Amino acid sequence: MCYFCDIKDKKEMILFKGKYFFSVYDGFPVTEGHCTIAHNEHKESFFSLSKEEVEELYDLIKKTKEMLEEKYKPDAFNVGVNDGTAAGRTVDHLHIHVIPRYFGDVEDPVGGVRWVIPEKANYRKKKN
Amino acid sequence: MCYFCDIKDKKEMILFKGKYFFSVYDGFPVTEGHCTIAHNEHKESFFSLSKEEVEELYDLIKKTKEMLEEKYKPDAFNVGVNDGTAAGRTVDHLHIHVIPRYFGDVEDPVGGVRWVIPEKANYRKKKN
Repeated sequence: MCYFCDIKDKKEMILFKGKYFFSVYDGFPVTEGHCTIAHNEHKESFFSLSKEEVEELYDLIKKTKEMLEEKYKPDAFNVGVNDGTAAGRTVDHLHIHVIPRYFGDVEDPVGGVRWVIPEKANYRKKKN
Repeated sequence: MCYFCDIKDKKEMILFKGKYFFSVYDGFPVTEGHCTIAHNEHKESFFSLSKEEVEELYDLIKKTKEMLEEKYKPDAFNVGVNDGTAAGRTVDHLHIHVIPRYFGDVEDPVGGVRWVIPEKANYRKKKN
């Protein structure tokens, strides 16, 4: 069974729930507080959302971010989505990552989501 | 001067322009077709957008993605934002990355935007 379909009704895990999306802590957090916002239905693509869905998604991203700010006092956030297998998606059920970032969590954070291609992520470190 | 403030009126660079955002090819692309969608104003945070702005942003993300699909035939996409210095942002002017992905562009894409923390990105490769 799909991981997100499996957990979507586990109330003890849900942080925020809307008509279209729900927010949970990520199962394999990369930082303290790493959350995931998934669709309530087994919908695959980020690119086929209605206006209502987009509006709610942004609202849940903000609510999740505000909760995390309060709880973990992070210094910044990455928000992002992997749309498709070649983009690193492993569960084919739409989910958006909200990743709190802390100074010192990596040696040099420059690049952020550009790190999907590690070799080219940090454009300040040019290769000779 | 801010990079995005500098280019926002360079018509030859603009792919799509709306009331709030514009879309361009990224200055330091990590893959072929890597685009960036920036705010028309020198606004910093992703988390303070109005409903109208969010709606237009999503629309521009989709338009950019569709143009890239047509032109480069990618296999997938990452969409993401670095909100704050600790998240890897270097230009403090809101911009969202739209990164086309191609099978083979990295050895193992698993994790996608989780790669903001390289050490923990690929949860399938557990450390002993």
